[in-house]
Amino acid sequence: MRTDYEIELCKLFGKNLVRVRRDRLWSQERLALESGLARSYVGDVERGLRNISLVNICRFADALGVDVSELTAFRQVSDLQGANSEHSDKET
Amino acid sequence: MRTDYEIELCKLFGKNLVRVRRDRLWSQERLALESGLARSYVGDVERGLRNISLVNICRFADALGVDVSELTAFRQVSDLQGANSEHSDKET
Repeated sequence: MRTDYEIELCKLFGKNLVRVRRDRLWSQERLALESGLARSYVGDVERGLRNISLVNICRFADALGVDVSELTAFRQVSDLQGANSEHSDKET
Repeated sequence: MRTDYEIELCKLFGKNLVRVRRDRLWSQERLALESGLARSYVGDVERGLRNISLVNICRFADALGVDVSELTAFRQVSDLQGANSEHSDKET
């Protein structure tokens, strides 16, 4: 089961991905095509349902033509301190 | 099997993590303790052997007291274009 910390992070990442994609006026289909990832996967990530891996973060960044750090600039360090007490699935 | 693209990205991320950790004069043991992740896992990530997930990137960032985007600021968009032609394990 996912902790609040994990759910919140995945949602924040997804929202930021939506923002960057829409800045380019791209559809999810276009992002899927350009990144080589499935359209359903793009949708899941944007809704915060997936704990995306580094490599796929980079695939999205490359497709969108942005630095990886732009896709991960979705919060400040202090934003989630309250939700940072519980951890699970630590090695994934 | 991991592609050159994946291997390179994981290595770059690992090197950058080492840099940030050493800036704080922390050992791998200290980072493991502060992040709640295993020492062996920290070592694997730093050697580029793991395709780390978003949630664990955030755990390291929180432990180190840096923004997630600092841990992922390990390259420029154009650095890996040559290695970006092959993809596998796309949905992980």
